[in-house]
Amino acid sequence: MKYQARIFVTLRPSVLDPAGTAVQSALKQMDYHVDSVRIGKYVEITLDAADEAEASQQLNETCDKLLANPVIENYRFELTVIEEAKV
Amino acid sequence: MKYQARIFVTLRPSVLDPAGTAVQSALKQMDYHVDSVRIGKYVEITLDAADEAEASQQLNETCDKLLANPVIENYRFELTVIEEAKV
Repeated sequence: MKYQARIFVTLRPSVLDPAGTAVQSALKQMDYHVDSVRIGKYVEITLDAADEAEASQQLNETCDKLLANPVIENYRFELTVIEEAKV
Repeated sequence: MKYQARIFVTLRPSVLDPAGTAVQSALKQMDYHVDSVRIGKYVEITLDAADEAEASQQLNETCDKLLANPVIENYRFELTVIEEAKV
């Protein structure tokens, strides 16, 4: 089956976010007052897998090894089927 | 009212994604075969606004002016109420 994964990689709440802070102060100068800005990565992956469990396992390994730095980042993903298996 | 906005800034489909291509080939070397990888920005903003229309307008302006490059990027956002107005 073909899946589309939407992966969200965000800094842990305890980690300072200099990019977010910079955007927030830029917004303030533009007269937009926001309480907080946190910036992360958004990754869309399309992949083939036998079932959702296999797709999730592959994505967990992909995030742990490549997309997220476990020391300072969290990740989560949403999976949707985009093509059923051909019978 | 206090809102949380989840903003997704992605490259237009017609625009090449070198970062995504690099991740895809790295995944291939790690024996993970995926069809495509597209990398974008994920921004979480908390802000005060009178209502959803005002929050949306502020976010559209924020994205147009600061977070997204309209020539090569698309953006969309999801809004959720995190705190009702105090009566």
